[in-house]
Amino acid sequence: MKTLLLIGMGAGDPEQITVQAINALNRASVLFVLDKGPLTEDLVRLRLEICERYIRTPGYRLVQVDDPQRNSASASYAAGVEDWHVQRAEVFAQLIAEQLADGECGAFLLWGEPTLYDSTLRILDRVRAKGCDDFDYQVIPGISSVQALAARHRIPLNLIGQPIRITTGRRLVAEDLDNVVVMLDAHCAFEAFIDENVDIYWGAYLGIPDELLMAGKLADVCEPIKQLRKAARLRKGWVMDTYLLRRRPSA
Amino acid sequence: MKTLLLIGMGAGDPEQITVQAINALNRASVLFVLDKGPLTEDLVRLRLEICERYIRTPGYRLVQVDDPQRNSASASYAAGVEDWHVQRAEVFAQLIAEQLADGECGAFLLWGEPTLYDSTLRILDRVRAKGCDDFDYQVIPGISSVQALAARHRIPLNLIGQPIRITTGRRLVAEDLDNVVVMLDAHCAFEAFIDENVDIYWGAYLGIPDELLMAGKLADVCEPIKQLRKAARLRKGWVMDTYLLRRRPSA
Ligand SMILES: C[S@@+](CC[C@H](N)C(=O)[O-])C[C@H]1O[C@@H](n2cnc3c(N)ncnc32)[C@H](O)[C@@H]1O
Ligand SMILES: C[S@@+](CC[C@H](N)C(=O)[O-])C[C@H]1O[C@@H](n2cnc3c(N)ncnc32)[C@H](O)[C@@H]1O
Repeated sequence: MKTLLLIGMGAGDPEQITVQAINALNRASVLFVLDKGPLTEDLVRLRLEICERYIRTPGYRLVQVDDPQRNSASASYAAGVEDWHVQRAEVFAQLIAEQLADGECGAFLLWGEPTLYDSTLRILDRVRAKGCDDFDYQVIPGISSVQALAARHRIPLNLIGQPIRITTGRRLVAEDLDNVVVMLDAHCAFEAFIDENVDIYWGAYLGIPDELLMAGKLADVCEPIKQLRKAARLRKGWVMDTYLLRRRPSA
Repeated sequence: MKTLLLIGMGAGDPEQITVQAINALNRASVLFVLDKGPLTEDLVRLRLEICERYIRTPGYRLVQVDDPQRNSASASYAAGVEDWHVQRAEVFAQLIAEQLADGECGAFLLWGEPTLYDSTLRILDRVRAKGCDDFDYQVIPGISSVQALAARHRIPLNLIGQPIRITTGRRLVAEDLDNVVVMLDAHCAFEAFIDENVDIYWGAYLGIPDELLMAGKLADVCEPIKQLRKAARLRKGWVMDTYLLRRRPSA
């Protein structure tokens, strides 16, 4: 048997990694670092930094993998995701077959929390479904960007005894506005709700040197956030942001 | 100024603590450990273990605090919570005034993630509103029980591109069943949905030696989970459990 460890590394701050994750890194003889193209060079560098900083056992192998990109020109979102997962399953099956010997342990350093909007677990299910099942795997939790956001703004994620919703920019709807965290939003979906009486707590590059934070009544900070985000994206070449929207108590 | 650190310690597994949390523990000269009565002696012990294991700076003070309990006999849930928060704000204000000198740093070791169903941040707001504002505070994220649950069952928290809901036993409704994580459920709220075509992924004492896990179609495992939970609660004197419910794809 081979072992795969899916290790949550936190969402940017290299100190937001757990002791369990560090121990897991030290158990692995092969580290798979997924490379999603030039735009995320910074993110690959952060993964390498984490390896250098925390791995004490010498002689591990770093395998940098060109991760296939999702074809956003696909007929539908679902079809695009499906194709992409099929391709990634092939890449993963090959990695496991060629890079790991029987009895060896390999690790994937995953951004934030491995079970939150990350497809690696689903890809491994596909790899097994293809008949490649000579491996076992474990999940090591990590601090998500949702937690980094709440910590930096020092706000509870929930109102007292109330539910929490986490959603994507694509799925954000007015019914969510009581209390919702939004991830994976490339288009400032909050702008559609500028007339609602809600507060926004926004953060980009959380835990990374260029971290940006802004909070306030949505109507007041919507434009400033958009401008800040646009300028930062131009400057750095990429942006990752997350935000919480919360309806203000009616007077 | 005084400094308070609200430190997430993970939800049971002492290795699920971050490097940032360990560094924060080592910055504090006073550690506040809240004691919620005999039933949670185990949980206080875990906090003490974490201090012993990770604090390298000698001479810190441990202050064990009798945390007022919520009066569940109150007229309403909201009134009960309100009274309880007023009392806790008094306790906290006194602690800050009497146990911390100017320039000193105190830490609260909070269970799991400090912004998730934890009232400490809200209590500190009340303390400040009472005019006691000679302190600043920071939040250090921690691995939540939601993450521990997903990791142990090795399941993604979300379906592809879909939202996630986190709620309490009290608030669980049929509309949530597509995909929902339930916390703070003293009464096996899942039982009400036994006729729905959903899977349950259940975990109790996650990360703690007596950890229990069970998963399957709700109709099949509802009774076994209830029995396991009841027996464990009798044996240990307390139980903490969390679960994810997810509608099965229609054939
Ligand atoms: C593919 S998802 C992965 C989420 C990750 N598993 C986690 O736990 O945070 C990527 C999204 O996470 C959010 N995100 C991740 N890291 C972030 C950071 N450092 N600052 C702000 N948002 C971040 C953004 O919304 C981004 O679009
Ligand atoms: C007051 S809330 C605090 C949650 C905590 N802040 C967190 O992040 O997990 C307590 C609830 O968390 C869940 N919980 C906390 N620790 C747990 C554990 N080790 N195993 C199972 N459930 C747990 C249970 O649903 C419990 O009722």
